[in-house]
Amino acid sequence: MTSAGTNRQVLLAARPQGAPRDSDFRMVEAAIPEPGPGEMLLRTIYLSLDPYMRLRMTAASHMPPFELGTPLLGATASVVVKSNLPDYRPGEFVVSLHGWTSYALSNGKGLFDRPLAKLDPKRVPLSAAIWTMGSPGLTAYKGLLEVGKPKAGETVVVSGAAGAVGSLVGQIAKLKGCHVVGIAGGPRKCGYVTDTLGFDAAVDYKGGNLVADLGAQCPKGVDIYFENVGGAVLEAVLPLFNPFARIPMCGHVAEYNVVERHVGPDKMPDLFLAILGKRLTIRGFVVSDFMHDMQDFLRDMGGWLAAGKIRYREEITDGLENAPRAFQAMLRAENFGKPLVRVSPDPTR
Amino acid sequence: MTSAGTNRQVLLAARPQGAPRDSDFRMVEAAIPEPGPGEMLLRTIYLSLDPYMRLRMTAASHMPPFELGTPLLGATASVVVKSNLPDYRPGEFVVSLHGWTSYALSNGKGLFDRPLAKLDPKRVPLSAAIWTMGSPGLTAYKGLLEVGKPKAGETVVVSGAAGAVGSLVGQIAKLKGCHVVGIAGGPRKCGYVTDTLGFDAAVDYKGGNLVADLGAQCPKGVDIYFENVGGAVLEAVLPLFNPFARIPMCGHVAEYNVVERHVGPDKMPDLFLAILGKRLTIRGFVVSDFMHDMQDFLRDMGGWLAAGKIRYREEITDGLENAPRAFQAMLRAENFGKPLVRVSPDPTR
Repeated sequence: MTSAGTNRQVLLAARPQGAPRDSDFRMVEAAIPEPGPGEMLLRTIYLSLDPYMRLRMTAASHMPPFELGTPLLGATASVVVKSNLPDYRPGEFVVSLHGWTSYALSNGKGLFDRPLAKLDPKRVPLSAAIWTMGSPGLTAYKGLLEVGKPKAGETVVVSGAAGAVGSLVGQIAKLKGCHVVGIAGGPRKCGYVTDTLGFDAAVDYKGGNLVADLGAQCPKGVDIYFENVGGAVLEAVLPLFNPFARIPMCGHVAEYNVVERHVGPDKMPDLFLAILGKRLTIRGFVVSDFMHDMQDFLRDMGGWLAAGKIRYREEITDGLENAPRAFQAMLRAENFGKPLVRVSPDPTR
Repeated sequence: MTSAGTNRQVLLAARPQGAPRDSDFRMVEAAIPEPGPGEMLLRTIYLSLDPYMRLRMTAASHMPPFELGTPLLGATASVVVKSNLPDYRPGEFVVSLHGWTSYALSNGKGLFDRPLAKLDPKRVPLSAAIWTMGSPGLTAYKGLLEVGKPKAGETVVVSGAAGAVGSLVGQIAKLKGCHVVGIAGGPRKCGYVTDTLGFDAAVDYKGGNLVADLGAQCPKGVDIYFENVGGAVLEAVLPLFNPFARIPMCGHVAEYNVVERHVGPDKMPDLFLAILGKRLTIRGFVVSDFMHDMQDFLRDMGGWLAAGKIRYREEITDGLENAPRAFQAMLRAENFGKPLVRVSPDPTR
């Protein structure tokens, strides 16, 4: 059984070698499925594009790799079109993980078999709900507060400061009384980081003087470096760490596309000397480790958003067919704001 | 004023480039000093040789570098020869940090201005007291228990397993109910690690199959890797880590002598991927961070030693003039047992 209309999906056509190319994706069209007993039909409104997806396109992730020939997965804000589930009615909005598809069937269960959460667009816009109140938000919140353990007056450096996670990390750190320095690429993003997000300073990693510029903005050294990109930024922060500094490590976008390793002098000894000499703590984490704290997070982040204490910016691309290009641009850090795809019209705005 | 006899000292003559050479040390002789008011004269019996000294010979350490033209520092077991201090009487034994000298004046204060601890050779031999009950012991105890947080049944991998710190780490881990795998160089040290120290298994890093051999001895993966040497061993352990594994990092002897960095493909991305994907925690520490826990340590370690639950082995070199050669051999991992120098006769055995 199918519904009238067309279900469009973007499949993983090939595992990327290095940066993903158009040919790694394939758009297909099929009939819209009809929900059976215990199912509902969802229409995707927003699809969140996130760097971790690049990892799952190959087999290098802690999560299972995406399967070839199936739609890529990802967080989606959807509207219930038809429902055979008593708890979900047509017209209600939910967050799910159906990914790069314009329609999907659901049994009402999501991650860890929990019921799909409903979204209230009167409180938070649908687009923002799936990321500020979703995985990127929880990543920022727990990564900073539980892994980083900031104290008022400490200096927090955030890479990817204009990005989805980094922008939230820095703002939460400001709410906790820290001196916050963001690292971003180019004057426009840096201006946004200080003027809109309210960081104390921004350093342009494309400015050619990362080490000196960062040192100038961190006169008291660095107590927390929220590692969000990897590569050269960590090397620049290394000499600035204070004793007992913490490095929450949640991503390293700079390396997701790397196939050939850069050849050069071994950098590991310098890292180890710093870890030992400064008594650094580096701790990797993934957001799913913190799902049990979701209620605390939703309460705090919901309150901050409602009070206007957290600002955010989105870069919305219209049409699922444009998702592969938007995704590739994100991996080149060309986006300015959280990348989202509007798969179908948002009836709430 | 001087006492009769000669005070022999080994000075830092030059900062080593790479591995220390004989010419980096200089032996001098001077008159034995006479203690003034509030002072006592100590005669060194044992001098502990430890890898951190190599770091302090150059400026790469978290501790101040040794000064050129002055005696190298280090833990010593000494006997009080003359005393103008009411709390110390001639013939008593103390642990101090006077280093590579056959006599030293002391005001009775040591690290953090604390009174020099007295040693009771009836409980623990003087030679062992300055390391099993000293800094290497405290490093092993706190590094494993507080940084590593072992749980019974977990797998603990220890590098430098036949060495001062590693041998203690593995034995404490066994006392805590862990599966303990030691990494050491050569069949003799490996046999010692299993047969005398009681580790569950030993892997010979010189055997040519480190990755495969280690994997075979860690069928349930690795929960704690006590990082004691750095370099290739960490790379071999990386694929074996279980989620949420901990890496206490207290040393990296393999790199202390390195001047030219090995040139090759960048290894940092693999490390970062493992940290993130496995949610690793790497934490550097130095023993002085844990001085406030000294009493707990002395109680536990003293009890284990008295009960015969901790075994140890020493390699004692006679004569301060032979200290530079013994030190160089230690940095080449040629010692078998904790390297100590018997600077003057031990009257207790």
